[in-house]
Amino acid sequence: MKTINLDYISGNPLAPEVQKAMIEAIQKNYANASSQHRLGDEAAEALQHAREQVAGLINSERHEEVVFTSGGTESINHAIKGVAFAKAELGKHIVTSNIEHNAVLRTLRRLRMMQYQVTSVPVDGYGRVNPDDVAKAIRKDTILVSIMHSNNEIGTIQPIEEIGRITREKKVIFHSDAVTSGGVVPIDVQKLNVDLLSFAANQFYGPAGAGGLYVRKGTPLWPLLDGGVQENNKRAGTENLIGIIGMGVAAELATRDMELRMNHSLKLKRKLVKGLEERIEDIYLNGHPELSLPNLVSVSIKYIEGEGIVLMLDEENIAASTRSACASGALQASHVLLSIGRDFADAQGTLVVSFGIETSEEDIDRFLDVLARVVTTLRNMSPLYIKKAAQV
Amino acid sequence: MKTINLDYISGNPLAPEVQKAMIEAIQKNYANASSQHRLGDEAAEALQHAREQVAGLINSERHEEVVFTSGGTESINHAIKGVAFAKAELGKHIVTSNIEHNAVLRTLRRLRMMQYQVTSVPVDGYGRVNPDDVAKAIRKDTILVSIMHSNNEIGTIQPIEEIGRITREKKVIFHSDAVTSGGVVPIDVQKLNVDLLSFAANQFYGPAGAGGLYVRKGTPLWPLLDGGVQENNKRAGTENLIGIIGMGVAAELATRDMELRMNHSLKLKRKLVKGLEERIEDIYLNGHPELSLPNLVSVSIKYIEGEGIVLMLDEENIAASTRSACASGALQASHVLLSIGRDFADAQGTLVVSFGIETSEEDIDRFLDVLARVVTTLRNMSPLYIKKAAQV
Repeated sequence: MKTINLDYISGNPLAPEVQKAMIEAIQKNYANASSQHRLGDEAAEALQHAREQVAGLINSERHEEVVFTSGGTESINHAIKGVAFAKAELGKHIVTSNIEHNAVLRTLRRLRMMQYQVTSVPVDGYGRVNPDDVAKAIRKDTILVSIMHSNNEIGTIQPIEEIGRITREKKVIFHSDAVTSGGVVPIDVQKLNVDLLSFAANQFYGPAGAGGLYVRKGTPLWPLLDGGVQENNKRAGTENLIGIIGMGVAAELATRDMELRMNHSLKLKRKLVKGLEERIEDIYLNGHPELSLPNLVSVSIKYIEGEGIVLMLDEENIAASTRSACASGALQASHVLLSIGRDFADAQGTLVVSFGIETSEEDIDRFLDVLARVVTTLRNMSPLYIKKAAQV
Repeated sequence: MKTINLDYISGNPLAPEVQKAMIEAIQKNYANASSQHRLGDEAAEALQHAREQVAGLINSERHEEVVFTSGGTESINHAIKGVAFAKAELGKHIVTSNIEHNAVLRTLRRLRMMQYQVTSVPVDGYGRVNPDDVAKAIRKDTILVSIMHSNNEIGTIQPIEEIGRITREKKVIFHSDAVTSGGVVPIDVQKLNVDLLSFAANQFYGPAGAGGLYVRKGTPLWPLLDGGVQENNKRAGTENLIGIIGMGVAAELATRDMELRMNHSLKLKRKLVKGLEERIEDIYLNGHPELSLPNLVSVSIKYIEGEGIVLMLDEENIAASTRSACASGALQASHVLLSIGRDFADAQGTLVVSFGIETSEEDIDRFLDVLARVVTTLRNMSPLYIKKAAQV
């Protein structure tokens, strides 16, 4: 039986057009784009073409403001550490939110070990940051605000544009981790008022290992990778050209098909939410009902554990997750769910369902059938549930 | 006419077996190796298999001591900054050599901006470091020694084993940039006494964008990329699995064919050196005649400029270079050539010829013919040469 993939958020499959372009690049066997002879010219042209494709996805006016990286994590580390180090003499204070991805959280934790200070603003029950809280958190020595565009566990989209207006006014550099948004929902770096924006190809049907960092001209930023003169002196190292070519094609597809893809996802999301509400009692849907990603549903199912659900789904050839793949192996309850007010038990009972262009309504139907069965089985073994049932 | 590639050092073409494995990986469309369901298991297995292949290449006893990176530059930045930050409270002094690659040089320049101090030891006329100089340079506050295994411009191989004995005795962490050696000449991290060793797949017929950092168990090292739990918590970010699979195959091929490849290269190198000496007057061969890479010849051709030679060779469909591709665009004379005693003019007249498994003796013959012609043409236009000829 074919596995139903409901874990798109941990990395999309490659689009057929992306596969084709990457295979052609492998067969072409490009030289180094920085080499001094004509063998390198074709590589340099392919690199430039991909940069234009990616710049188009986020409406970057200057192509050279797109820096290619090895993925979302590198982009985020580059943005945050790059500003922190470049501006260290002017201040060491950074503002962020309580529900950032591990790449932001742990980068900031690292900077704290280097005498930086971090203020983390809370979110409401939907996981939204209040821009006024960001304004209040900014101090004279604040050098950077880093707030994610959308959350990878609950899908909530932040008021980035409003926050960007505040950072502009207060002349503080603004980075947004848009890894789960880039290529999924419209991103316009001009409208968003961001100075730095991180994104990754594997969230829009491109390859893992290819990402981008938008760097607005004039933003003070040290390279994370020092060395050669590649990427306009912003990121040294011979480029992952095969991956970058794949990312370029993926960006072009995402630009072209975004509305189509969003509509498809939204239809599935509505069906899924409706099905969950109708068929399973005692659940919470996490994240904002409207201001959120179209391709993700987070549901906390009371009295049972998410890990158990994922395992039983896996046995029925359905792939889902309880949280970020980057956090698997970690046993703590999700900081995102605790931040939006879920208690520890409900956080543990959470399932993240994410989907995409290859997901069908039939897949959602089958998922709902299997989930209803799995939940019943697990609840019948759950002391909490039995106790609750006895009280009714 | 087919281009003769004599610029292997800027990045090898992909081996056919590597192309095949990467294309299969693209078609397989792997899930995220860290995901919580069975779709990720195959990815995790492929990752582990590649790690074993790469560990075999450098004789790393524990596979988990191999950390996958996005290439040589990331490995070097990770090693040097990682130790510098992890040990900052114990000291801020680093020892290196005068002829390191830009990735080392500029990383150290960056650290100097953060109050680190660097002592750079000289090299002899062949570009060799004297281990005694390293011993003398080590101070009480020295936290790291970073000396390259072989030089990317002149090919000279350093006495890493002897330097490693010194760093062991003095309990200083030792990193070697082995980017141009890894997969080309035998590397045994046990014998070399290194704690950290950087290498890159594109130097042994694997893809650009995939590299490795050997990290001896217990070596204090901060991640360069903070975030998820990948790579045993040493390097966050979803893996470039397609590139890593290519690197694994390339490593296995390099292990199997190393002697064959070295013999092939050495034969070409001897032919090339003999031809240069016989056919072109007033040249210097740079680098050590024996203790050097088999696949690279650096020659300084008096009275003319390397850039001009490369351009004219390019017109005859021969790809060569004057220096590291990572430094192209930079106009200064090579620090490596100045360090081995070449004057500014001779440094400018230098050509780096590098080759590999697809290079034939006929290619070398044709190169020598064309070069002899190019040199005559350029010298006849060179005021320096005309003056010299008049004096004779």
